[in-house]
Amino acid sequence: MAAAQEASNKEAFRQAVGNTLERRLFYIPSFKIYRGVAGLYDYGPPGCAVKSNVLAFWRQHFVLEENMLEVDCPCVTPEIVLKASGHVDKFTDLMVKDEKSGTCYRADHLLKDYCKDKLEKDPNLNAEKAAELRHVLAVLDDLSAEELGAKIKEYGITAPDTKNPLSDPYPFNLMFQTSIGPSGLSPGYMRPETAQGIFVNFKDLYYYNGNKLPFAAAQIGQAFRNEISPRQGLLRVREFTLAEIEHFVDPEDKSHPKFSEVAMLEFLMFPREDQVSGQQARIIAIGEAVSQGIVNNETLGYFIGRVYLFLTLLGIDKDRLRFRQHLANEMAHYAADCWDAEIECSYGWIECVGIADRSAYDLHAHTDKSGVALVAHEKFLEPKEVEKLVIAPVKKELGLAFKGNQRMVVEALEAMGEKEAMEMKATLEEKGQAEFHVCTLDKVVTIMKNMLSISKEKKKEHQRVFTPSVIEPSFGIGRIIYCLYEHSFYTRPSRDGDEQLNVFRFPPLIAPIKCTVFPLVQNEQYEEVARHIARSLTAVGISYKIDITGTSIGKRYARTDELGVPFAITVDSTSSVTVRERDSKQQIRVSVDEVASVIKEVTDGVSTWADVLWRYPTHQS
Amino acid sequence: MAAAQEASNKEAFRQAVGNTLERRLFYIPSFKIYRGVAGLYDYGPPGCAVKSNVLAFWRQHFVLEENMLEVDCPCVTPEIVLKASGHVDKFTDLMVKDEKSGTCYRADHLLKDYCKDKLEKDPNLNAEKAAELRHVLAVLDDLSAEELGAKIKEYGITAPDTKNPLSDPYPFNLMFQTSIGPSGLSPGYMRPETAQGIFVNFKDLYYYNGNKLPFAAAQIGQAFRNEISPRQGLLRVREFTLAEIEHFVDPEDKSHPKFSEVAMLEFLMFPREDQVSGQQARIIAIGEAVSQGIVNNETLGYFIGRVYLFLTLLGIDKDRLRFRQHLANEMAHYAADCWDAEIECSYGWIECVGIADRSAYDLHAHTDKSGVALVAHEKFLEPKEVEKLVIAPVKKELGLAFKGNQRMVVEALEAMGEKEAMEMKATLEEKGQAEFHVCTLDKVVTIMKNMLSISKEKKKEHQRVFTPSVIEPSFGIGRIIYCLYEHSFYTRPSRDGDEQLNVFRFPPLIAPIKCTVFPLVQNEQYEEVARHIARSLTAVGISYKIDITGTSIGKRYARTDELGVPFAITVDSTSSVTVRERDSKQQIRVSVDEVASVIKEVTDGVSTWADVLWRYPTHQS
Repeated sequence: MAAAQEASNKEAFRQAVGNTLERRLFYIPSFKIYRGVAGLYDYGPPGCAVKSNVLAFWRQHFVLEENMLEVDCPCVTPEIVLKASGHVDKFTDLMVKDEKSGTCYRADHLLKDYCKDKLEKDPNLNAEKAAELRHVLAVLDDLSAEELGAKIKEYGITAPDTKNPLSDPYPFNLMFQTSIGPSGLSPGYMRPETAQGIFVNFKDLYYYNGNKLPFAAAQIGQAFRNEISPRQGLLRVREFTLAEIEHFVDPEDKSHPKFSEVAMLEFLMFPREDQVSGQQARIIAIGEAVSQGIVNNETLGYFIGRVYLFLTLLGIDKDRLRFRQHLANEMAHYAADCWDAEIECSYGWIECVGIADRSAYDLHAHTDKSGVALVAHEKFLEPKEVEKLVIAPVKKELGLAFKGNQRMVVEALEAMGEKEAMEMKATLEEKGQAEFHVCTLDKVVTIMKNMLSISKEKKKEHQRVFTPSVIEPSFGIGRIIYCLYEHSFYTRPSRDGDEQLNVFRFPPLIAPIKCTVFPLVQNEQYEEVARHIARSLTAVGISYKIDITGTSIGKRYARTDELGVPFAITVDSTSSVTVRERDSKQQIRVSVDEVASVIKEVTDGVSTWADVLWRYPTHQS
Repeated sequence: MAAAQEASNKEAFRQAVGNTLERRLFYIPSFKIYRGVAGLYDYGPPGCAVKSNVLAFWRQHFVLEENMLEVDCPCVTPEIVLKASGHVDKFTDLMVKDEKSGTCYRADHLLKDYCKDKLEKDPNLNAEKAAELRHVLAVLDDLSAEELGAKIKEYGITAPDTKNPLSDPYPFNLMFQTSIGPSGLSPGYMRPETAQGIFVNFKDLYYYNGNKLPFAAAQIGQAFRNEISPRQGLLRVREFTLAEIEHFVDPEDKSHPKFSEVAMLEFLMFPREDQVSGQQARIIAIGEAVSQGIVNNETLGYFIGRVYLFLTLLGIDKDRLRFRQHLANEMAHYAADCWDAEIECSYGWIECVGIADRSAYDLHAHTDKSGVALVAHEKFLEPKEVEKLVIAPVKKELGLAFKGNQRMVVEALEAMGEKEAMEMKATLEEKGQAEFHVCTLDKVVTIMKNMLSISKEKKKEHQRVFTPSVIEPSFGIGRIIYCLYEHSFYTRPSRDGDEQLNVFRFPPLIAPIKCTVFPLVQNEQYEEVARHIARSLTAVGISYKIDITGTSIGKRYARTDELGVPFAITVDSTSSVTVRERDSKQQIRVSVDEVASVIKEVTDGVSTWADVLWRYPTHQS
């Protein structure tokens, strides 16, 4: 029952954070006056400011520091692009329908809820059954439509609201579909990720970078997923901001010149082997992880390190942040390695950043579909002599033998790798014929010796042409911000101890407003000083809020603590003012003319609060 | 033929700008490797940087300076919201179809092209016919579907590509439609503007602002218009970034406390009367325009002034910028006044910012549709005695008389204005009965004296409840950026005079990259200095590009002039370097340790180039 208590504490904490966020308009359920739409949220004024600070810092930390090429592509995307990327065919969730009301549910969610509920609440559950349910939870993501359907039937799961029977699970494409232009003949989708806009521009970007690898392109923008039944509030939404990087690199050299700058960073990592053997995440230095081969290569390791720095500088608690490696069954077949930055919040460990080595998959896919070669070139200093495999089908003989299937046999022969071809050559020379499996026909054919020649020729080559690998760090900005809210939130007793006050301990970097200006009492002199300070703050680019209500200064502090404003300036004389820091509640006295530059120093991180505390007289309130 | 020459010059200039923009990846036709989609463009690296600089400056100039409440709402919008706003019913263009191929065209575009073509190229056109065509061009925007269709028939206009006959014009809704959730029962649209997201949040934002007026909310985001056949390149696109402000104000007091700060600004204005009487735009001080009643009110005037400052600080040429007032027939029936900031470019005068006093239209519409009162309150210092109209229908009598129609009759009676009600009262008293038109039934009914009482009562009121007016400056960011490109572009001869070099004279504020770093020759010492300078630039937040190719310094200057980079640092010793300004080509010598802070000074606008030119020794190249 300790688990139940913990769950209830988490729920209470989530409620407290959520209430504060909604009351102070960090977010607003979208179209609220029309009773809203599930999975759509607005950022209200402080939330919008936090978001733009997070994005500005992302640009500084990644785009500017690494000289990345930022692009900005449309959300509306023609079908062919998403056909090539695989989204049209495979970007689906399995759905079941209430057979009477027509309400739709995610099949895996219903099964998961059933198992969890049983495990938590059924006192009569025997050990064997409990083990079975835990196994179902563990393999949930791997179940096919048929397997999911069978489990739902076996457990007698019905529609949650009506108890009506459910349909068999079937795939539902999660993209918002639309039509481009007036003809109705050009289907399009709202992009489910921003990455494709970068891949289709590879050729131009490579040229822009002086035809040199490696380089990275980046994009910040909206992405869309038409979730079946969004849950988990701000974590699973139908429209969200992604920030994605595609770092293009030579597959034969994934070293990174700046890797040494992050190699010493230590943080929680959760390698695949440790997950499989039931261990916990442990602290590893990223340098170690790469040299031990836990992380596939330096570039991937470099980005893991940079993501760690980014998240912790934002204010994410390093003890509730881990990098979890994908299990073999989670990873796309083409991926070389993949790590998720997961942040722990009241909903559990949440994937907030994915960092994947996607190999050459995406560029290959678009090369195939568009016919435009998305490749890189490496010029040799002097020509190299290379042995090249030459497979020469004799089309006349093949035509006689295979008639209408000739083309497919020829293509399959030409696509043989070196090992396979050399084996066939040996077999043909030895036996005069060989069995050969043609995938596209799904059958084995017999190839005679006179149907093709296989040889190796020596050629001089002046350059190497290859498809770059891509390493993709992809950031779910809304999820990061939500976790940041939870990690920044705390309560403390009011001065007279009769209530608990809410505080967000945002670092100045991302606080929605950097400081507030309070005239201590309502009088024209103090308000003029406040306006003067406000003008100086605007001049140095510091966002502020003036509060000239007659409310007690304690109440005004409490109000801005709840917005996470790090500094408050109280105008209590016409020559100098009191500056108070939010978390320590320490106060110093600074002259009216200096105060804007002091606030700028501490918000820009040029000085810490401790630095200025030492420089200015403290104030006892 | 001077006109023809001018048109051809404009076309050549547009080509030159366009080629440079596309070659240097300021923009890229989206999904180019799949042959693109009309009306969709990507911002490549320098374009993306210009865009984020423009948006950052917009935030500084409007949101921060005016303490606006910024929000961020989804693009996916449920139908009910856009039904209320009128977009579902009225956001249409008239379209004609090629009757054989099915290709669609905008009906007004075809008629416009026909008239222009005739006027420009037909030598046999008589004066009468010419006058008629000019008249058609002038009233083009006001023609109904029937009138457009009749003209197309009369002139024998056919499909441009095939010469096939055309269908009659019919309205095509310009919103991208989609479906929210898996059921297919919740139609949605990609928002055609960002404003509606603000209006539906009025109640929360008003509360956030301490229930005080005036206040402004702002939003930057993507908007979508499924154009029938996009033309004019970057000016008419299917997806674009809007930046919109909704300034809510008491309709009885549209003064603005900071109006005096802009009142002396003078610029080209084009009032309605001058347009009608065939005059030219003329320079007027905005203070004059408001005091003479040319501009409806101070708040509208204040924003016109602020928009002028915004655009000219970005680099828009003030001689090719005018504020044109909407003609009576251009303006929505509810609008109190409306001005467009128009910028002249090779396509003519282009609407880039609309500044409209939309009165209470939008808040009324959403109040009606949602049933949530989007109103403001003014508390009286002491209660006021007011006369209130009381209309009390006697439901029993009305029920007997109108049966099933009773509700509609009651609603119509209760909705009578003061004048109408008092007239009915007089008629009923005089004649015992009155004729009454019920809109919702579309018929006239007879109301008897015993069916309702009408009276005036005196009441004490403690507050005034009213729907605020909204003043809306709405910025088409992409159009502003395109015009900026044209206004910033020029060519100058190369040093040896054998070619023309392209330059963008972007102010440092919006230049995509603030400076370049060139080691004069390829050697390790100079490259180390260059990297050192690069690190100092990153530390002070200045974007830069290192060019270590062995190309001549002149070529490297030419390359970065074409990107509009304002400053170049040439590393020609290990202790001091040469800094060159783009437009004057003046050069100064600055020590390696100082150079980053000098560049920061001139890019932040703390100093001008003239200031630093005076401080440092000049360099003769």
